[in-house]
Order: sequence, then C-alpha cells, then structure tokens
Amino acid sequence: METMRDGGEMHHVFEKAISNLRAIVGESNVILNPEGYLYDETPEAVRPEICRDTVVVRPENTHQISEVMRLANSLRIPVFVRGGGTGLSGGALPTKPGIILSMERMNRIIEIDQENLVAVCEAGVTLRQLIEAVERIPGLSFPPHPGDESAQLGGLVACNAGGARAVKYGVMRNYVIGLEIVLPSGDILSLGGKIIKNTAGYDLLHLIVGSEGTLCVITKVILRLIPEPGKTYTLVIPFHDAWSAIRCVPEILKSGIVPMAIEYMDIEAIKAGERVTGKKWPFSGGKAHLMVIVDGRNEAELMEKSEIIEKISGKYGALDVLVGVSRREQRDILEIRSLIYEGLKNETIEVLDVSVPPASIAEFVEKCQKKADELDLKVLHFGHAGDGNVHQQIMKSGLRKEEWMKRYVEFKEFAFSVADELGGTITGEHGIGSVKKRDLVKTSPDVLIEIMRKIKKVFDPNNILNPGKVVDDE
Amino acid sequence: METMRDGGEMHHVFEKAISNLRAIVGESNVILNPEGYLYDETPEAVRPEICRDTVVVRPENTHQISEVMRLANSLRIPVFVRGGGTGLSGGALPTKPGIILSMERMNRIIEIDQENLVAVCEAGVTLRQLIEAVERIPGLSFPPHPGDESAQLGGLVACNAGGARAVKYGVMRNYVIGLEIVLPSGDILSLGGKIIKNTAGYDLLHLIVGSEGTLCVITKVILRLIPEPGKTYTLVIPFHDAWSAIRCVPEILKSGIVPMAIEYMDIEAIKAGERVTGKKWPFSGGKAHLMVIVDGRNEAELMEKSEIIEKISGKYGALDVLVGVSRREQRDILEIRSLIYEGLKNETIEVLDVSVPPASIAEFVEKCQKKADELDLKVLHFGHAGDGNVHQQIMKSGLRKEEWMKRYVEFKEFAFSVADELGGTITGEHGIGSVKKRDLVKTSPDVLIEIMRKIKKVFDPNNILNPGKVVDDE
Repeated sequence: METMRDGGEMHHVFEKAISNLRAIVGESNVILNPEGYLYDETPEAVRPEICRDTVVVRPENTHQISEVMRLANSLRIPVFVRGGGTGLSGGALPTKPGIILSMERMNRIIEIDQENLVAVCEAGVTLRQLIEAVERIPGLSFPPHPGDESAQLGGLVACNAGGARAVKYGVMRNYVIGLEIVLPSGDILSLGGKIIKNTAGYDLLHLIVGSEGTLCVITKVILRLIPEPGKTYTLVIPFHDAWSAIRCVPEILKSGIVPMAIEYMDIEAIKAGERVTGKKWPFSGGKAHLMVIVDGRNEAELMEKSEIIEKISGKYGALDVLVGVSRREQRDILEIRSLIYEGLKNETIEVLDVSVPPASIAEFVEKCQKKADELDLKVLHFGHAGDGNVHQQIMKSGLRKEEWMKRYVEFKEFAFSVADELGGTITGEHGIGSVKKRDLVKTSPDVLIEIMRKIKKVFDPNNILNPGKVVDDE
Repeated sequence: METMRDGGEMHHVFEKAISNLRAIVGESNVILNPEGYLYDETPEAVRPEICRDTVVVRPENTHQISEVMRLANSLRIPVFVRGGGTGLSGGALPTKPGIILSMERMNRIIEIDQENLVAVCEAGVTLRQLIEAVERIPGLSFPPHPGDESAQLGGLVACNAGGARAVKYGVMRNYVIGLEIVLPSGDILSLGGKIIKNTAGYDLLHLIVGSEGTLCVITKVILRLIPEPGKTYTLVIPFHDAWSAIRCVPEILKSGIVPMAIEYMDIEAIKAGERVTGKKWPFSGGKAHLMVIVDGRNEAELMEKSEIIEKISGKYGALDVLVGVSRREQRDILEIRSLIYEGLKNETIEVLDVSVPPASIAEFVEKCQKKADELDLKVLHFGHAGDGNVHQQIMKSGLRKEEWMKRYVEFKEFAFSVADELGGTITGEHGIGSVKKRDLVKTSPDVLIEIMRKIKKVFDPNNILNPGKVVDDE
C-alpha cells in the first residue's frame, strides 16, 4: 500500500495481497487511497486513531467477498467492513494496516416478496433504498427507522440499530429473519430465511445481530415487512421542566395506547435542530418537550389516542399540546428531531446512549443533570423516552481539551454507574465499537467478557475481522 | 444411586455427590427414585433411551443451583435441567447417569412491574401462573401461548417456544428482555434487564434463547408485557380441500389486518380434538378448516376484520364462516385445537413441525400428502398456517413397528427435503432435543454444526449440561 511504513515482511505481504485483490474484484475496485473511507459519524473527540495504511476493496457479490476473506485470513490481514459510515462508536474505522471492505456495490434489492411479506436485499442497500422500494407497494411498510437513511442494511443489522419507533415496532433484531454471511475462513452460510419460526439449533442469526462486524461479513439480509400502520399524528408537548415531561411517559405507556414513538428533548437540543434544518419547531417556550407519534387506521382512532395523551400530559403540567396532522408538519418536526446531533456535531465530545428501564428515565436524567451542573459541563438530554434509551450529548462549550476531557470522563463514568444502579446498560443503540470497549470491560463481569472473547475466536480464530473492536483488547 | 449399574469408580463419584447435593439443597430435595421425572411429551416411538440411574435435585434458589453446577462440573456429572416436561423432542430427558435438576421449586413470580410493563419470574414459574398473575392486572397481557400451560418459563425460553399467536404477537424470543443464568462452572450471570434496547457486546441472551438447556441453566426470566389487545373473535372456516384453505392464508395476511392466529386443520385432526375434549366443533363438514382469531379494541373493528376475512375465504370456496363471539364458544374451539395432539398421542409416531415461508405452505402440504398417500402412511396436517409452521402428526394406524418405521423415516426425510427446497427449516418450534439431532447435522452445512459445537464448548467445556442433545453427538 502506498503509505506503508511497516516495511519489510508486512510490506511484502500487502504487495502480494493487492495483486490478488485486483484479480478478485477487478483493478478499479481496489483503491489504494482510502480517503473518503476513513471516518464515520463518531465525534472526533472520542474517535480511535485512524490507520491510513489501508486499501479499499469494493466487491460486487458474495463470491468475491468469500475470496477476499479467504485471502485475508491466509495472510492474516485485518479486514474492516464498511457500510454507510453512519456509526457513532467508531465500529467501522480502520485502526490497523489492512483492507477496508466497502459494501457499496452490494446494493441490489433482490426481491420484495409480497406473498411472504419480506424484503431480500444485499447488505449494501441503504435504508433509504429499502424504504423507497417498500413505499412503492401500497399497504406495505418497514417500520424501524434508526435515523440516518444512508445507513446500509448490513450495518443496521450488525449494530442492531434502534431508533424512535422502537416503542411500538421494535428494533432491527425484530425484523431480521434471514442472513447470508461470509466467515473469515471464506465459508458462506445462510441463516434463517423467509421463515417466521426457527428452532433448529443455536440461533447464530441472533448472535450476529449486534456483533458489529467482528464475527462475519453480512452479505444478504431478509427482513420482515408489515402491513402499513395507517396514518400518524405527531404531538409536541412542552413542559416547564424535565422531570414533569419524563414522569408522564410511563403513564402514557400504561394507558393502553402504544405510541409509535415517545421522544424527549431539552429545549436547547430543539434549538440546535432548528438551526441546522432552518425549520421552526411548533412551540418556542418550555424547558423540556415530548414528541409523541401515534398511529391508527383512521382519524377517529388518532383523535382518541391524542386526547388520552393530552389528558395525561395535562396532569403533569404540560404547557400545551400541539398536534401535527399534515404530512408536511409532521415531517418538519421529525426532521428537527433527527438533526439535533448534526447541528451540534462540531462542538460535541460524545453522545452517550444509555438504556435504562423506561420508568427510571426521570431519575436517570435528573441525577445526570445534577452531576453535569456540578462539573460545569454542558450536557443536552434528548432521546427515546418511550423505550428508556436516553441520548446525552456532551459538549465542549469552548473549553480546552485538558479541561473537558477530565470532566467528560468523570461524567461518563457517573452516567454508567447510575445506569448500572437502575438496571440499565451502557449502550442501547450506538454499540461498543472502539469508543466503549474499555467501558464494556469495566462494567461487565470478567466471565461475560471471557465468553464473548471465546465466541469471537470461534468465528474468527486469527482475529482478522474488525480487530480492536467490541471485546478485542488489541 | 440406587440402581447404579456402572459400578466401580463412577459409583463412588455418585455416592460422594449425593451427600454433597443433600448438603446443598437439603435431604428432602435429593430424590433417589427419579420416577415421575423421566419422561416428557415426546412420543414413545421416537423417544431416546432413558437412563434411570439418575438422582432428582430440587433447588429452591439460584445460589443452590450455582453450587450444584459447581459440584457437577468438578465431578463431571451430567445435569439434565427439567422444567414442566412438556417438550416434544426429548430435550429434557436423562440419557446418561447424572442429575435431573428439577426447577419446580423455583416458582416465584418476583414482580409484575406495572411501571415498566415487565414480569420478573423464577424460571420454574409455569405459563399458567404467569397468565393468571398478569390477568389480575386490568389492561395488561402476555400474548405468547405455546400450548400446554404447565410448561415452565425457563423451558419456554430455552426452547424459544412459539404457538398460534405468533402471527401477530411473535414467539418467546420477542418477549425475553432479561435472564439470570448459571453456567456449568457455577458462575451466575445477568443478561439484559428491564430494558428494551441493549447493544452492549454480543447478545448472549438471544443465543441462550433456543439453546435447549445445553449452554446454561436459566434461573430467572424478565418478560415484556403489553397492553391487552382487547376483545377477540374466533372464526371457523371450513373448505372442501386443503389446497383452497391454505391458499387463502397469504391473502389474509396481505389484506392489512393481522390476525392473532391463523390455524389450519384436517377434519380428522379436529375429530381427534373433539374426542379428547368431549366438545363439539361448530361445523362438521369440509375436509380442511381454518381457525382465525382476530383481535380489536371494539366490536366494530372485530366485525370489520371478520368481514374482510369472510370475503377473502369466499373467493377460495369457503363452505361457511362461523364466528365465535362469546368467551365460552371461543374457549371451546381453542381447546379442541389445543388437544389434537393429546387425542392421538398413543397412536402417534412423531409430530413434525417444519417451518416454511408462509406462502409455500400449500405446496408443502400438498407434496407431503401425496408422499404419505404413496407410502400408505397416515399423516394428519394441522398447525400454524399464518406463520408457516406446519404440524404433521404421523400415525401408526395399527401397523407393526417394522412396517411404520421404514415409512416414517422415508416420509420424514422427504418432508425435510421439501422444506429445504422451499427455504424452510426442519423445526419451527419443537426444537432439536434428542429426536432431531441427526436430522440437524444431516441438513446443515458442516461449518455451521462445527460453530455450534464450539459454542457449546465455550459455555460447557466438560459437556455436563444436557449432554447428547442438539449438536452433541455422544
């Protein structure tokens, strides 16, 4: 590789690999300059050190991926699988000399099977592509929406992506029923299929969901589709304070209506979203807002649900309940919510995504806010209140690195310890990647980490697949 | 142990173990005569050879289980975990001298948490106990219903039990969010919790769901509850032939209404259910019946759904559509369906539970019926048409063992090969256990089996936990 500085034997290995890689995927699909493939959405402050001594390989089918893996395995060359590059934990980032396996050309929607209500796609298909294909068929839908639509399905599965609609419709895991994978050995396996029930041996499919590219390369995914949920209303409900806003969430959940999404946002987070979108949030006052999306088969059902939510939020001192009815109003609200992170990215140290029992969110947020105030650290709270998954965007606020680093680490460890006390977990949707590797080890029993490491070895005995991530301590 | 015939060293090991076991769980909870703990619901014809040289141990808490496992592991004594004994694949049956670890005393419902909508239970709690506890709380429900309510939650999780309601409400996996487990080493681990989203490392919880007691002992389960779906109607729809009945299932699924259950039954299967229950099915004609359960928030919604189903089934030549409205009518219909197996048990060789893509059920059933006719083998078809999970009850019909054995094996292998052609799997809910061990190996790539065996070794290096099951070829 062009910038190879290791010299000697390793250099020779790569030289040999490159000509073999060209033979497998074609000359134009071996790119020696990895620029454009080196980063994802992980904030710079917590990003691992990137290794530029990497070559980008762009296979176009499973057979080629099998050949690439076989080669890499025999030469012990690290492989970093790259999907849409939308991860927030540095899970796809190359941290050693090796191959960046870009899935961008594996972008065919193989089939939308309307008889079985499934989509069969190559792993490089983006969420946007899938949504568009499904929307073309009246009455069908793919509900999970983990945010950035340029994410690829393989990555969404590998990270068990979540998103706001999980309250009612679950996360990626709930939709994956089949996978084609390539092992580091080059072996190709099919797991599951267009089948809803499967109890034939250990469920490797569900082990691979959430394994963040460290066990195998996902090459094909089979996803369940469901009948379209119908129309939606988007409610914006401002409150004087966080505690009141969050306290009414469990009561909404218990009421019997299951909203599609219940999002919580600090007003500052909303303002950041407004700035980046240039759009206006429907209510400018209140320190803390809920955004609730309900779905239903007709207006009457939507009205009924909205009224129940209005009544509950009234009990907790809601300042108002604004109901977005038109497609456009709802889209604008959602866009502001979706782009909060984008609006603050440059000033962000990290976005934590602790997951706690939904009824404990208020306690979690209150304790963390108090800690942030003590540390004089700016932390914006927003996220998926309905499923207990809080986002805490920790800001630099003009501090020098020496200043914010200490505060940030102290805050993070505090947040993780509170999560643990409340029976939560350190990450609900962003995953471990490079960023939370040490935290995972620190907050988990040794026995658990040991099992994970041994499982890694079962799939990848030479540790070539995404080394340095999740439980690999290299 | 009383009937120990191995003599010598092994005998000595057991003598020592028994006094230790008594010290751990108390004298009265070490039962030397295993009678009553030796069988499950697996038909005698395919049951593995039972080993009576076993001692029953009945722990009452996780700590005791940890001690028992530590002891068994150090002495290399096999442990067979026993739940409700309702399995159909011999997964819990003792096949070697060892310990039967009966979970019957781990029967406490620790908490029905109404704030987080979860149930926390010891693994020996039965499905009936759970349902009764949940029903006492207005507005809450636990939808999965895999059949026999004396099944225990630990077993339901270990086997990823399914059942009729999977069409709309999924299988056990979709409800398990937390587990406490004991490893063969005696280590106790908590996985997940009262949390909906979790991406912290490899998802061992989902690996354990469906592992059939071969990786660890499940001691506690945390299950999601959901708001009560409302009222139900149960529709009985008779047809002239199987093909017509099954052909309309995908069209019901595509219509946008998602029934809770769509069951298919041969008329002969129905008659067996009538015999054992003493109850009368609402329609006596027709060769093939569908039973469809719809749920809804009010009568209007139920009527609307029923009418859509009536219209679709009319297109496929339904002889009638009978709507069970009262609780009692519906319960009777369901009971007849549930007890089909019971009614035919003595004459049954095996009940296969192949799972295929839902739209391929008609083809699967038709091909298999033809094969059965050729072999002059009586096979009753029924099962979960809505999710592609077919039950094929293979009957002895008065044949001698030499006669039926050959035909049964040929039929089974045929059914598995058709399932494979259609993209299905050999078992959708009964699991592998002892009964389908060879079939799993035969129908799976070597690489897949090899991975499963290595995973078994990661958890249970001395192969003491449920040896001889799933992928263990002893």
